[in-house]
Amino acid sequence: MIITMKKSAPKQEIDALMGRLSSKGLQIHSSIGENYNVFGLVGDTSVIDPKQIEANPFVESVVRVAAPYKKANRLFHPEDSIIEAGGIKIGGQEKLVIIGGPCSIEGREATVQIAKAVKQSGGCMLRGGAYKPRTSPYAFQGLGTEGILAMVEARKQTGLPIVSELMSADKLDEFVEYVDMIQIGARNMQNFDLLKAVGKVNKPVLLKRGLANTIEEWIMAAEYIMAEGNENVVFCERGIRTFEPYTRNTLDLSVIPIIKEKTHLPIIIDPSHATGDWKLVEAMSLAAIAAGADGLIIEVHENPECSWSDGAQSLKPKKFQELIEKGRVIAHVIGREIA
Amino acid sequence: MIITMKKSAPKQEIDALMGRLSSKGLQIHSSIGENYNVFGLVGDTSVIDPKQIEANPFVESVVRVAAPYKKANRLFHPEDSIIEAGGIKIGGQEKLVIIGGPCSIEGREATVQIAKAVKQSGGCMLRGGAYKPRTSPYAFQGLGTEGILAMVEARKQTGLPIVSELMSADKLDEFVEYVDMIQIGARNMQNFDLLKAVGKVNKPVLLKRGLANTIEEWIMAAEYIMAEGNENVVFCERGIRTFEPYTRNTLDLSVIPIIKEKTHLPIIIDPSHATGDWKLVEAMSLAAIAAGADGLIIEVHENPECSWSDGAQSLKPKKFQELIEKGRVIAHVIGREIA
Amino acid sequence: MIITMKKSAPKQEIDALMGRLSSKGLQIHSSIGENYNVFGLVGDTSVIDPKQIEANPFVESVVRVAAPYKKANRLFHPEDSIIEAGGIKIGGQEKLVIIGGPCSIEGREATVQIAKAVKQSGGCMLRGGAYKPRTSPYAFQGLGTEGILAMVEARKQTGLPIVSELMSADKLDEFVEYVDMIQIGARNMQNFDLLKAVGKVNKPVLLKRGLANTIEEWIMAAEYIMAEGNENVVFCERGIRTFEPYTRNTLDLSVIPIIKEKTHLPIIIDPSHATGDWKLVEAMSLAAIAAGADGLIIEVHENPECSWSDGAQSLKPKKFQELIEKGRVIAHVIGREIA
Amino acid sequence: MIITMKKSAPKQEIDALMGRLSSKGLQIHSSIGENYNVFGLVGDTSVIDPKQIEANPFVESVVRVAAPYKKANRLFHPEDSIIEAGGIKIGGQEKLVIIGGPCSIEGREATVQIAKAVKQSGGCMLRGGAYKPRTSPYAFQGLGTEGILAMVEARKQTGLPIVSELMSADKLDEFVEYVDMIQIGARNMQNFDLLKAVGKVNKPVLLKRGLANTIEEWIMAAEYIMAEGNENVVFCERGIRTFEPYTRNTLDLSVIPIIKEKTHLPIIIDPSHATGDWKLVEAMSLAAIAAGADGLIIEVHENPECSWSDGAQSLKPKKFQELIEKGRVIAHVIGREIA
Repeated sequence: MIITMKKSAPKQEIDALMGRLSSKGLQIHSSIGENYNVFGLVGDTSVIDPKQIEANPFVESVVRVAAPYKKANRLFHPEDSIIEAGGIKIGGQEKLVIIGGPCSIEGREATVQIAKAVKQSGGCMLRGGAYKPRTSPYAFQGLGTEGILAMVEARKQTGLPIVSELMSADKLDEFVEYVDMIQIGARNMQNFDLLKAVGKVNKPVLLKRGLANTIEEWIMAAEYIMAEGNENVVFCERGIRTFEPYTRNTLDLSVIPIIKEKTHLPIIIDPSHATGDWKLVEAMSLAAIAAGADGLIIEVHENPECSWSDGAQSLKPKKFQELIEKGRVIAHVIGREIA
Repeated sequence: MIITMKKSAPKQEIDALMGRLSSKGLQIHSSIGENYNVFGLVGDTSVIDPKQIEANPFVESVVRVAAPYKKANRLFHPEDSIIEAGGIKIGGQEKLVIIGGPCSIEGREATVQIAKAVKQSGGCMLRGGAYKPRTSPYAFQGLGTEGILAMVEARKQTGLPIVSELMSADKLDEFVEYVDMIQIGARNMQNFDLLKAVGKVNKPVLLKRGLANTIEEWIMAAEYIMAEGNENVVFCERGIRTFEPYTRNTLDLSVIPIIKEKTHLPIIIDPSHATGDWKLVEAMSLAAIAAGADGLIIEVHENPECSWSDGAQSLKPKKFQELIEKGRVIAHVIGREIA
Repeated sequence: MIITMKKSAPKQEIDALMGRLSSKGLQIHSSIGENYNVFGLVGDTSVIDPKQIEANPFVESVVRVAAPYKKANRLFHPEDSIIEAGGIKIGGQEKLVIIGGPCSIEGREATVQIAKAVKQSGGCMLRGGAYKPRTSPYAFQGLGTEGILAMVEARKQTGLPIVSELMSADKLDEFVEYVDMIQIGARNMQNFDLLKAVGKVNKPVLLKRGLANTIEEWIMAAEYIMAEGNENVVFCERGIRTFEPYTRNTLDLSVIPIIKEKTHLPIIIDPSHATGDWKLVEAMSLAAIAAGADGLIIEVHENPECSWSDGAQSLKPKKFQELIEKGRVIAHVIGREIA
Repeated sequence: MIITMKKSAPKQEIDALMGRLSSKGLQIHSSIGENYNVFGLVGDTSVIDPKQIEANPFVESVVRVAAPYKKANRLFHPEDSIIEAGGIKIGGQEKLVIIGGPCSIEGREATVQIAKAVKQSGGCMLRGGAYKPRTSPYAFQGLGTEGILAMVEARKQTGLPIVSELMSADKLDEFVEYVDMIQIGARNMQNFDLLKAVGKVNKPVLLKRGLANTIEEWIMAAEYIMAEGNENVVFCERGIRTFEPYTRNTLDLSVIPIIKEKTHLPIIIDPSHATGDWKLVEAMSLAAIAAGADGLIIEVHENPECSWSDGAQSLKPKKFQELIEKGRVIAHVIGREIA
């Protein structure tokens, strides 16, 4: 951690601050400049709150050198982590996972049918929303438990493991019992009580990036889960909010190499929610594979015009299958395969 | 709602879509253009999901004309709503409320002391965090119930009503019992289960704007609370996320006249979290008052350098008092007073 | 164009506005709703300024249906345009162009040397900055004419066509004489006088997207050039400004399918400036190819640590060659080849 | 400047880099941490390009401590600069300047008439666009020289100094002859050749902030002008681009205290372009005054519905006058007056 102090700082103020810091076990190196004095702190600075130091009126700036995360940090865990969900391995040099399914679960029969289509198209896992975070209280809020049970039936008939979004800790038992991977949605990425709750169970967590969250905050959200004991976190990029109105969000594919550099955890991409437009899904899926993603999560619906939500971004099974076929060849180019 | 269809749309596709829409009780007016056909839907379009219509490959765009909110909408409720919290009235032509207090509650004695300073400086309500949403799992997470009880003691000794942030529905009973206004933080603005929970109780809610949420989404979050029966919502702007690194967030004061035009609910401003820098708090507070805000919520700490969190943005009581004195005169210019 | 008027609009105000619009040759269709009246305008609405209509206090909103661009619009020009630069064809189903070279031109000898390395690695065009847009007036501003002549020498020795950035119309003659493709930089994307100037010459223009410009504004910048007579425009995405600090900008690859849907012009990607980090360049380059880009423009330097600018984002020739080899296979998957 | 190197950096790499830096006259202080080595450079680091150092694969990060601007820096020029434009003084404790006028100049007679209205309402300077930066090549591009001469006539009849936007250096002579303050528009904030050109003349420059430019980049644009010899720069905030669609841009009023802390130059606010909505102009104007702005620039039009551009954001003279009257009292509260 680097602290820059103004030249006008009185000696006793500097001494008081540095005394407090060295009493926390930190070593201090000072550089005296023409306009500023700069202090480098060496040791475990994760115990220090930079904002408290910035409250000192003689401090110009405080810059962290070491990353604030530990369990997710590749520096302390150089090998790739492989996360297992319902028998499927995600990350490292494992096969890419292609997850497909409807935005909202629409009943048992429809769910079994789409699961079969997903499987036949080459998908290896089923997604579906039973509890839906909707902007409007008047929009369909999901089938709830009935939807989860429809997915369980679909898994029984197809063998596909299932992933669904958990919105509230009071449904956690249901998810632990029935679901293979628990999704934390973008809007809840900093719902810290929910993160702590899923950190206490032994199920893999698919952690979506918040719409306006930096990569560091996203890794810190994973750290919340891991700090509670559950180290099975899979990152999922789904676009960030920008000024561009043409797409729903701006898909940031540069996070793929970055997450792999900074952490040891897998990352998959959700091109459906990012773009909000099925016409863009194939191009963004192939791009994600080429950039090194460990998988994709894609909305698939037999009849997007009649879907109960987000039809505009859903692929029909045939398009989904074509996408997987092309993706397979691209994965091969960079030394990977598709499950 | 306006639906634009491509010229290439076959007649039977158009007829099928329009048939489905008119069966929902909507009247349809069509305009045939050179390159597009445009259809205007008249009636209660809140039952329609635009994304489902956009899934139709012959649809170019869908534009909503009427706002998607009802209970918060000034169109259907022209008079200002006055919200009452612990005996203090907020909104309309009532006096501006100035809320002060520490970022984190640091124990009973310190809380009573800062409450006295807030009151003496001219503040009329006490803020303080007992449950803290922190980016890092290793940072201080708040005193919890002990912190809430410290605020209760401060209220007993000073008479100041108290506001604190609720992070999880399982603490709702505690908040209903002890707190005068329940704050929903920026990170939970779209935690819809939490919104529904506070919508079921009879306490005013201070609803902070999410870091990357549009004004419409913010009003829809209020609609979630109101749709459950609790119409006592106060908006609180605390800055949005932009590319500018100098301030923590960019305070968007234009929301003040906009919220007052679109809704009948009060709005207050939090310049401390928005800027993250105490040196900017006074200027932004006076600006907020001049722009018509119904109040301010400001971090105040006796000794910011020793605060347990966010010291860099806290004012000392003396600066807080000066700010209120200046604010009083500005409020007067626009026909308001400070409580 | 759709005009929504408030219910409170007096009949004579509506009649006056509609009279003015129909006198411009537009047909008007009206839909009377419960809370708003909606008017659809049919005909050539490009002559109308929406902001003028919005100035009417009884108007709630004005929405454009037809795109405001004509010459760039695929609707009126369904076939792909192929742009030729120094004998190289860009766009359509032509081979992908891979452009390489240093950020700043550093003298004749160095330029010839890097051009040879670019060619040997598989690149087909040479980039290099002779006039440099630098944030600081104290930073190196480029070699100017001397730099352009160094590129000309490199072209002579290698046969690679050259592209360089024009910052000011008073150097246009020099660029027309010496350069094969004129680059308009991100900071000048809305320097309309410069756009008009390059619109009057007969050289292809590489038009970078502005840091905070929407896709529609970007196409309108191309329209400025085309409206003057020069229809040889190639789009170049180089990242947009977002809140994320890890990368210099956020590369928006979804523009590739969007530009191809909306316009008939080619698009290439600049992963070097977008990310600002050579470690991310390969992944983003392969992603761009997979997403359907017509080419790449990449910074290449023999010794990035000693480059005169932007070393952090430059690849060494060996990495550049590896990238091209991988890209070649990915291009093949989507039915393209690399030149 | 602080350089953080990875622990894996070989000693000879560290020595080579530090040798090169100390040969530039910099002193180097090193701090050896557990995971990183940190080096503090003391001396004139403005000669060093951080991106070149970051190109070194063993460098983790480079952080600048000192601001990169000198002439604009308050550190080296503690007193407020007062800029004079046509006899009007701007900045320091001088009276606030209220500039009014139409978006586009629409002819001599109309200009004289609006100038009289601006003066009568209490404005002290006339604004108007003769050369217009328009997104569409098909939109009205301004009257050019004829517009400038209409403003000159208005100045003759009212005594109001005039400010207008310069888009291209080839019109600079015209502006130097006729105009009292040269405006550089948001889209040209980083048109460095234009900045250098106005830096060579002896006229005050009104420098608008670019839509996506940081405060530091904005100050660096002023530095470009000042480095050429013209130190008469007035900053003008006009909103930044964000995700919020309700307003055209997001007005960032926190720049007022920041610009005053970092530089010695004046700053005025343009609420008309920032919001794009006349209904928001008064609230934002009063807020700007309360926050300490040195002036306002506001669009005023006799008949906004018939204006030639941007009618939606123009005030009628009567509203403009009311705004000035309220602003006068608010200015008084913070110890200022309105001219």
